[in-house]
Amino acid sequence: MLVVMRAHATEEQVRAVCKKIEDLGYRAHAMPGSERTAIGITGNQGEVEAGTLEEMPGVQELIRVSKPYKLVSRDVKQENTVIRFPGTSATFGGQGLAVVAGPCAIESREQALIVAEQVCRAGAQFFRGGAYKPRTSPYSFQGLGEEGLQIMAEIRETFGMKIVTEAIDNESLALVEEYADVIQIGARNMQNFSLLKRAGRSKKPVLLKRGMSATLEEFLMAAEYVMSEGNYNVILCERGVRTFADHTRNTLDLSVVPAVQRLSHLPIVVDPSHGTGKRNKVTPLSRAAIAVGADGLMVEVHHQPDRALSDGMQSLYPEQFDELMTQVRQIAGVLGRTVPAIGARVAAAPGTATRSEIASPAAH
Amino acid sequence: MLVVMRAHATEEQVRAVCKKIEDLGYRAHAMPGSERTAIGITGNQGEVEAGTLEEMPGVQELIRVSKPYKLVSRDVKQENTVIRFPGTSATFGGQGLAVVAGPCAIESREQALIVAEQVCRAGAQFFRGGAYKPRTSPYSFQGLGEEGLQIMAEIRETFGMKIVTEAIDNESLALVEEYADVIQIGARNMQNFSLLKRAGRSKKPVLLKRGMSATLEEFLMAAEYVMSEGNYNVILCERGVRTFADHTRNTLDLSVVPAVQRLSHLPIVVDPSHGTGKRNKVTPLSRAAIAVGADGLMVEVHHQPDRALSDGMQSLYPEQFDELMTQVRQIAGVLGRTVPAIGARVAAAPGTATRSEIASPAAH
Amino acid sequence: MLVVMRAHATEEQVRAVCKKIEDLGYRAHAMPGSERTAIGITGNQGEVEAGTLEEMPGVQELIRVSKPYKLVSRDVKQENTVIRFPGTSATFGGQGLAVVAGPCAIESREQALIVAEQVCRAGAQFFRGGAYKPRTSPYSFQGLGEEGLQIMAEIRETFGMKIVTEAIDNESLALVEEYADVIQIGARNMQNFSLLKRAGRSKKPVLLKRGMSATLEEFLMAAEYVMSEGNYNVILCERGVRTFADHTRNTLDLSVVPAVQRLSHLPIVVDPSHGTGKRNKVTPLSRAAIAVGADGLMVEVHHQPDRALSDGMQSLYPEQFDELMTQVRQIAGVLGRTVPAIGARVAAAPGTATRSEIASPAAH
Amino acid sequence: MLVVMRAHATEEQVRAVCKKIEDLGYRAHAMPGSERTAIGITGNQGEVEAGTLEEMPGVQELIRVSKPYKLVSRDVKQENTVIRFPGTSATFGGQGLAVVAGPCAIESREQALIVAEQVCRAGAQFFRGGAYKPRTSPYSFQGLGEEGLQIMAEIRETFGMKIVTEAIDNESLALVEEYADVIQIGARNMQNFSLLKRAGRSKKPVLLKRGMSATLEEFLMAAEYVMSEGNYNVILCERGVRTFADHTRNTLDLSVVPAVQRLSHLPIVVDPSHGTGKRNKVTPLSRAAIAVGADGLMVEVHHQPDRALSDGMQSLYPEQFDELMTQVRQIAGVLGRTVPAIGARVAAAPGTATRSEIASPAAH
Repeated sequence: MLVVMRAHATEEQVRAVCKKIEDLGYRAHAMPGSERTAIGITGNQGEVEAGTLEEMPGVQELIRVSKPYKLVSRDVKQENTVIRFPGTSATFGGQGLAVVAGPCAIESREQALIVAEQVCRAGAQFFRGGAYKPRTSPYSFQGLGEEGLQIMAEIRETFGMKIVTEAIDNESLALVEEYADVIQIGARNMQNFSLLKRAGRSKKPVLLKRGMSATLEEFLMAAEYVMSEGNYNVILCERGVRTFADHTRNTLDLSVVPAVQRLSHLPIVVDPSHGTGKRNKVTPLSRAAIAVGADGLMVEVHHQPDRALSDGMQSLYPEQFDELMTQVRQIAGVLGRTVPAIGARVAAAPGTATRSEIASPAAH
Repeated sequence: MLVVMRAHATEEQVRAVCKKIEDLGYRAHAMPGSERTAIGITGNQGEVEAGTLEEMPGVQELIRVSKPYKLVSRDVKQENTVIRFPGTSATFGGQGLAVVAGPCAIESREQALIVAEQVCRAGAQFFRGGAYKPRTSPYSFQGLGEEGLQIMAEIRETFGMKIVTEAIDNESLALVEEYADVIQIGARNMQNFSLLKRAGRSKKPVLLKRGMSATLEEFLMAAEYVMSEGNYNVILCERGVRTFADHTRNTLDLSVVPAVQRLSHLPIVVDPSHGTGKRNKVTPLSRAAIAVGADGLMVEVHHQPDRALSDGMQSLYPEQFDELMTQVRQIAGVLGRTVPAIGARVAAAPGTATRSEIASPAAH
Repeated sequence: MLVVMRAHATEEQVRAVCKKIEDLGYRAHAMPGSERTAIGITGNQGEVEAGTLEEMPGVQELIRVSKPYKLVSRDVKQENTVIRFPGTSATFGGQGLAVVAGPCAIESREQALIVAEQVCRAGAQFFRGGAYKPRTSPYSFQGLGEEGLQIMAEIRETFGMKIVTEAIDNESLALVEEYADVIQIGARNMQNFSLLKRAGRSKKPVLLKRGMSATLEEFLMAAEYVMSEGNYNVILCERGVRTFADHTRNTLDLSVVPAVQRLSHLPIVVDPSHGTGKRNKVTPLSRAAIAVGADGLMVEVHHQPDRALSDGMQSLYPEQFDELMTQVRQIAGVLGRTVPAIGARVAAAPGTATRSEIASPAAH
Repeated sequence: MLVVMRAHATEEQVRAVCKKIEDLGYRAHAMPGSERTAIGITGNQGEVEAGTLEEMPGVQELIRVSKPYKLVSRDVKQENTVIRFPGTSATFGGQGLAVVAGPCAIESREQALIVAEQVCRAGAQFFRGGAYKPRTSPYSFQGLGEEGLQIMAEIRETFGMKIVTEAIDNESLALVEEYADVIQIGARNMQNFSLLKRAGRSKKPVLLKRGMSATLEEFLMAAEYVMSEGNYNVILCERGVRTFADHTRNTLDLSVVPAVQRLSHLPIVVDPSHGTGKRNKVTPLSRAAIAVGADGLMVEVHHQPDRALSDGMQSLYPEQFDELMTQVRQIAGVLGRTVPAIGARVAAAPGTATRSEIASPAAH
C-alpha cells in the first residue's frame, strides 16, 4: 500500500500520516520526491485497513501495490535515487558516473596506498578493497580484518576517496559501518536475509551485489529487505551470473541495467572484473556497461596482479585502468554523463601523499 | 597435508602427533578409520614444514593433498561417515536410509503435531520444520522463531523423532543447537562462510544444502568450512540447481550423489520437494534418489497444503507420503538398504499422543 | 481443434469425418483409443470453421485445444502410445522396458559384432550405433555412412535386435529408414524442423532426443512437428541438458520423465551415457531413470572404450553393462515392469553367431 | 597443420604447395595476409606427413596447430577478415559498422517495402527478413518461401541494400544463395553440420548465429565447418544464450565479442532483438554491443509490431530505429568506427521508390 501526498502537503501532514500508519501497527516509509512525497506502508500481512488514512489532510490517494517489491519500485518513487557523500561531488545515481576501484583484497598498507594513489589519479572517486574476504576455501587468505579497514580509512584521509568494502556478517558489518562510507554485501550473501536486515538498520549506504543465480525479482527483493528496515540508500551491482559459458568466469548480464532502471529508482553499477574474470575483457565490458546506461563501475586494480592474494587474473594493471578511464569517459560523454578527468582528483586532494612517502611507510 | 598413522598406532601416539602439529602452529584433525587413523593438517598457508612429524612413533607416512578440499575427502577417510543419534537406530550414512519429513514451516503447535504424527507413523525418523524461514520477500511469513523450536522439541519428546531445522544466522544457530538434533544450513547460506564456521564450532551435526548454482567443488568446500572448525558430522543435501528449465522449480541434479560419494566420505541425502517444487514430481524423484544411491530423503508434508504459509505447491498430503514411503522402501531393498515399516515407529514411541489429544492443545 | 467420436462410432464414420476435415482444407489425424477415436485437426491458421463437423454421424463433441501442442497431448489420446515391432515382443511404452545399447559409432564390422553379441546376451532388444555422427569438429571421425548401416542390418539378422541409428539430414534419413528400425534425431537437430518434417513422412518410428537447452514445451513441439506430418510413432529421449555444473558433461534432468508422462501419451526413454558423460555415473543414473518411471534406456557400450573413435569416456565395458542390466531388472520389478533376463535373448535368436565366427569376418 | 609462406613467396609457389598438399590426400586452404600467405591443411586424421613440404620453395615454416579450430584461428590469419560486397562500401569487419535491419519475417510485399524504405533511410546497408522461418510450432507461420526471396531481391534493386536471409535446409539454401547476398544460418541450426557443410560450398558469405547453449569453442567449430569446405567468408553473430534469467528472452553475452576477436579473424555482429526479446532493451544493448567492439548489429524493425506474424514484442518501431542509429553512430565514433548518416543512403540509391509508390503495389 502506498499513500501519495498532495503536491503541497506540509511536512507536518506527512508526519501525521506516518504516525497514523505506525499507530495502526504498520511501518511507514516516507519517500520525498521532487513534486510530492509518497509514503510506503510495510509490515502488513495481507491488506492494510486504510479507511481513515484516505481522509487525512494532505493525502491525495491510496494506491495498492501489486508487485512483490514496494520501496524499491518506481511506483513509490519516480525520480532516480541519488546517493551523495558529504565533502565530495561524487554520487551514485547522479549525472556523474561513480567509479569504484582498488584491489580485490587489502594485502598490506603499502600495496593499498600504491594502488589507491594510482586509481585516484585516474579519476576514481571511490576506493574498494576487501578486509573481509568470502573465499571458497577456508584455507585461502581471508583478509586483514580491522587492520584492513584502518588502512582504508587512512586512504580516505590521504586521497579524499570514499571507501567501499564488504561486510560478511553482523560483526564485520559493525566495523565496516564505522570505518567505511559504503557497506558492500557480496553476491554470496545476496540472500543472507539476516545480514540484509542488519545493513538496513545502518546509516551508511549499501552496495548490494547480484547473486550468481539471482533473478531480477530476487535481486530487487534483496534490496527491499534493506529498505524495509529504513535504509533507503541502496546501490545495486551487476557482477555476472552463472551459466554454461566457459570463456568467462561469469556471464555479465548487461540487460539487467535497463531492466532495473525501468522498475526501480535505485542506482545500478557494473563490476566487469568479477563479471568476466579475465583482465583482457574488463575494458571492453566497462565501455559496454556505461553504454548500456549503468551509473558507474566497480573495477579491480592491482599494481602487481601476478602476486595478488586473490583474483589476480581479473585485476587490471594501473596503466590499463588509466586507459579504461579514458575510454569510459568518452562513452559517458555520448550519454551526457561525466567522469572526472585524469589528474583532476589528485590535484583536489589536499593531503595527497607522494609516491616516495607511500613506498616507505616506516617514515610515518 | 595428511599424516597417516600405522595400523596399530596407539591413541597416545595419535595424541602426540596432534600436539606436535598444534605446536607447529597448525590445526590437527584426527579422523579414525576402521584400520588406521589419519590426521588432517589445516591452518597452513602454503606448505607444512613437516620434517619432524615423519619420524614420530606410530607415523606411517605423510601425504600431500593436492585437492582443494581435505577433510571432506576420501583421501583422509576412506570409510563412509555414519552419523548416529543416541537412543535411536536412525543414522545418516548407515545401511538404513534417513527419512526427514515435515512441513516447510512450523505454523502452529496443532499443525506441527498433526503432521508429525502422520510422518512418524509412515516411518520418518527425523522431523523437519522451519522456525526461521529465509523468504525472498521481507513481507512474507518469517517463521515462529523460538516458539517453533519449542514445538519441535515437544515433537521429539512425543514421537521420538529427531529434529532437523534451519539456522539462518549466529543468533538462530545458538537456539537451534539448543533445541534441535541437526542444524540445517540452507541453500542461500551455502557460502555464508561466517555461518558455516559457527556451525563448525557446534557439537550438533550439520545438514548442508547445496547452493542453487554451486559446483560440486564449491559444495564440498562449504562442507570443508564446517569441518575445518572441528565439526566432522556433516550431511550433504542435493535440492536442485537453477537452470533454464521451467517445468520444475529447480532442476534436481541426481548425478551429484555418485559424484559426491566418489570424492567424499560424507553422507548425502536428496530433497525432492525443493528439487522439483511440484507435488506430483516428489514421489517419482524420491524413488530415483534412492535408486541413484542417496543416503536418505528430505520431504515436505503438510496436512493442508493449500493453506500452507509457504511452499504448499510442493508439499505432499500425508497419504501421498505413505505411498512414497511404500515405494521407496521397495527400491531401497533392491540396493540392500532399509526404511522403517509403516506403523513400526509409532509403536516404538512410548509417549505417542493420540490424534484427539493433538487436536485439542488446550487440554495440555 | 479435436473431434471426439462416440464410443461405438464405426470406422466408416471416422473416415467420413476425416474426409470432411480434409475437404475443409485442414489435415485430419485419427488417433484410435481403447474406447473411442479422437481426430486431431491441424493445418489451420486460427480457428477451424467447424460447424458441419459437429453434426456428422458418430461425432460426440468438438474440443478446442488451447495448448500449443495437440497431437502429442493426452487431450488427444489418453492411453500411452505403445510402439511395437513385428517379430519381437520388444516395445517402447509397453509393460516391458526398452533397452537400446551399443557403441557410440560403428567403427568396423568386427567391433560392431563383438559389442552386439555382448549387449544382446545381456538383454538389450535394440542395438544402437552411429553411422552418421554429428561431431563438433569437421576433422573428427564422421561415421562409416551406408557401410555402417549395412553392418547394423547384418546385426539385426544375426542377433534379432532391432536397429536404432541417427539420421542427420534428408539424405542420410532416406538410407536410415531403409536399413534401420528406428530413426534417431539427435539433440543438435531437435529444432531442425526441416528434418523433423521429413522424419514425419517416414513409416519408421522416430526416437527424438531433447535438445541441450530445450524446454519441455519445445521438446513436445518438436515431436509435434513429426506427428503433424502423419508419423505418430515418436519416442522421446532425455539425454541431459546444459548447465553450469561441471562434474558431469551434461545435467541429466530426470524430472522431465514424469513431466512428459503427465502431458503426453508418447513413450520416453533416458540416455544416461550422454546424460552424464562419465562411465562411473551411467549405472547409478540408469537405476534412477527406471525408478523415476522411464520407458527404457539408451546406453553406450564398447568392448575397448579407450580405443573408441568417439565418446569412449562414457562407454561401459560389456561386463559393466551386464551388471547394469541386473540392477535395472530389479528396479523395474518394483515398478511392475520387466527387462529380458541375461542370456534369454541369445537363446531366442536362431541365427546367433558364435564369438569365433565374429572374430574372423574373413570366414564369411 | 599450417604452412607459413615466406613474405615474398610467389603465387606460383603458393599454388605448388597447395597442389602438393592435395596430392598427399589432404585439403589446402590458402589464406593470403597483408605480409604473407598461410596455408591451412585439413582432412587429416592425426598427424600430417609433412616431410617434403618443409623444403619446398617459398615455405618459411610448418606450424602444428593444437587448437581444435584451425581456419577460423588468428594463428592461420592474423589480420581481421573483411567481407566486401560489389557496388557498395558496406563491409562486415571493416572500419565501418554493418547494420542489418528489417522485419523478423517477410509477410507481404507492402510490409517489406515500407520497412525497407525506413531502415534504408536510417542508414542500414543490409536488409534482413525471413522467408523460411524456423518456428517452435508446426502450426505457426512458416514464411513465404521463394516469394519472400523475390520480394527481398526487389528491395535490393530498389534501395541498394544487400540482403541477409536465413536458409533452413539444403533446398532453401539453394534458393537463398540465388536471391540473397548473405546466407544466414540460425541459432537452432548452428550444429546442423550437414547444412554448415552445404553453406561451405556456397560462394555467398555466411552469417552464422550462435546456438542457444553453444560454448565459444562450439561456435568457432561451427564456423570451421563452413570454412573447411572452402567458404572463408563467415560472419559470426551473438544473439543471446539460454540461462535461468527471466527478465529477457535470452541473456545477451557481450563478452563473447572480445573473446572471439582474440581467437579469430572473423567479424562478429550482435543481434540485440533476439538477444533480449524486448523492444525497450534493444537500443541500450545496441549501444553496449558497439561499445564492446562488435562489427555491426542485426536489428528487427516492423512498422506495425503489434500485428507482426512473429517476434512483434522485440521489433522496434521505425522511429525507434532512427533513434537507435543516432545513438549507435555516436558510440561508434568513440571507437573510431562509422555508420552511414540518416538520409545518406537513400540519396545514394538511384531507384528509390517514394512512399506512395510503395503503398500501392498494384501500380507497378
